[in-house]
Amino acid sequence: MYKIVLMRHGESTWNLENRFTGWTDIDLTEKGIAEARNAGRLLQEAGLTFDLAYSSVLKRAIRTLWVTLDQMDLMWIPIVCHWRLNERHYGALQGLNKAETAAQYGDQQVLKWRRSYDTPPEPLTPDDPRASFNDPRYAHLKREEIPLTECLKDTVYRVLPVWNDEIAPAIRAGKKIILSAHGNSLRALIKMLDGISDEDIAGLNIPNGQPLVYELDENLKPIQSYYLGDANAIAAAMKAVAGQGKAK
Amino acid sequence: MYKIVLMRHGESTWNLENRFTGWTDIDLTEKGIAEARNAGRLLQEAGLTFDLAYSSVLKRAIRTLWVTLDQMDLMWIPIVCHWRLNERHYGALQGLNKAETAAQYGDQQVLKWRRSYDTPPEPLTPDDPRASFNDPRYAHLKREEIPLTECLKDTVYRVLPVWNDEIAPAIRAGKKIILSAHGNSLRALIKMLDGISDEDIAGLNIPNGQPLVYELDENLKPIQSYYLGDANAIAAAMKAVAGQGKAK
Repeated sequence: MYKIVLMRHGESTWNLENRFTGWTDIDLTEKGIAEARNAGRLLQEAGLTFDLAYSSVLKRAIRTLWVTLDQMDLMWIPIVCHWRLNERHYGALQGLNKAETAAQYGDQQVLKWRRSYDTPPEPLTPDDPRASFNDPRYAHLKREEIPLTECLKDTVYRVLPVWNDEIAPAIRAGKKIILSAHGNSLRALIKMLDGISDEDIAGLNIPNGQPLVYELDENLKPIQSYYLGDANAIAAAMKAVAGQGKAK
Repeated sequence: MYKIVLMRHGESTWNLENRFTGWTDIDLTEKGIAEARNAGRLLQEAGLTFDLAYSSVLKRAIRTLWVTLDQMDLMWIPIVCHWRLNERHYGALQGLNKAETAAQYGDQQVLKWRRSYDTPPEPLTPDDPRASFNDPRYAHLKREEIPLTECLKDTVYRVLPVWNDEIAPAIRAGKKIILSAHGNSLRALIKMLDGISDEDIAGLNIPNGQPLVYELDENLKPIQSYYLGDANAIAAAMKAVAGQGKAK
C-alpha cells in the first residue's frame, strides 16, 4: 500500500483580498504561514515522514512546503517545483476581486467561470503585462504551452502528464511524497484519482493548508482518503472556499 | 566563460556561541538570516541570476539558500542538497566551546585540530548520540561513508566527487549555479579550484554569508574570483573567523 499527502497552500494575500489569482505569484499571509506550520505539526503527530516533495513554481505553494518541511525537520529532502502543478490560469480575471466581479457580471456568470468544467474566462491578450511569456520560470516551455486562460478541463489535461510521468513512478518506487499545490491543480489530481465526473468536480472544495492523505493500492487506486486535523475547522474552511465567488 | 557563486552560510547559533559544529544540525541566528537576505540583495545588484542551487543537507546552509533565493524571487529553481557538501566532521569536538577547548588543551592544539591538513580530532565512538548513523538524511549511505571525525584532507576527498560528477558537468552544460555550504567544504572546493597547497589552505578564512563569485574558463580554471559587497566588512568577517579558536 502507498500513501501520498496532498496539500493546498496556506492563505495567500489574494485569498484574503478575495481576488482571482491564477498564475499571479502571490505570497502567503501570516495566517497562511501559521497554517503551513500547523500542517507540519499534524503530519508529525500522525507519524508521517517524506523523502520527496513536489510543488508548483508559485511561491505560495513553495513557501507552504518550506514551512511545513521546516516544522518537520525535513528541509533537506528534494523538492521538485513543476509548472504543471500551477493553479488554473484565470485569464483576464487574474487580479480582479471576486465579489466585485460578481456584482458586475452576476453571481451565476462568476460561478460559471469558477466552476464550469469547460468554460474558460476571457483570455489575456498576448501583450498583457499579466501574461507569463517573459517569466524566467517558464523560459524552457514552448510558447503554446504557456496558457492565456484555462477552464478546469484545460488544467486537468495540463496537470496529468506530471502525475503519469513523474509522480506515479516515484510512488511506485517507494518514495514517500508530499505535494503542495492549488485549489484547481489539486482538483485535477483528485478528479483522476477518485474518478469524479466532469459535473461533480466543481462541487469539491479544498481548504487551505490542510494535509489530505491518500492511501493507494498497488494500482494507485484510492483505498481511502482523509484530512488530518480538526474536522470542524476543515468543514468551515471548505464552506469559506465555496462562498468566495458571491457578490456579498 | 562560466561563473559560479559560492557562499558560506550566515551566522549560526553555534558560530555565535563559538562552539565546534561540524555535522551538528544547527540553525541560523537572526543575524545569519539578515546576512543571507543581504547576500540576495548584493547578487541582485550585481545583475546575477541562477537556475540551479546546491547546498549541504544541513539547515544552516539550506536556510541561507532559501532566504537568498527568496530575496531574489528565485524560490522556484531546483535545489540539490548533497551530504558531500556538509561541513567537515569535527569528531569528539562537536558541541564543545572553542575557547574553553583552547583553555583546556592550549591554543596550539586547537589550532592544529582546526587548521592542520591531516590531523583529525578524536573520533566520536560509534555509539555516541552525536554520531549520524541513525539520521534519515544519511540512510542511503554505506556505514563506512558516514564519518566519525575528519581532517580537512578527508573533507577534500569527500567533497570532490560531487564537484566532478555533478557540479562541474552542470556548469559545462551552461547552468548558472549558486552553492551554499560551510567553511571547510568551501575550503575543499577553493583548494581544488585555485590549486592551493596543503600547507596554505589553512590560512584561507571564508566569511559567513558573503557571496564569492568565481569566473571560470572553458576548462573550469579560475580567471578571477571576488566577494560582492563591502570590502571592509568582508575583511573584518575573515579576521573574526581566524580568531575563533583562541582562548581569549
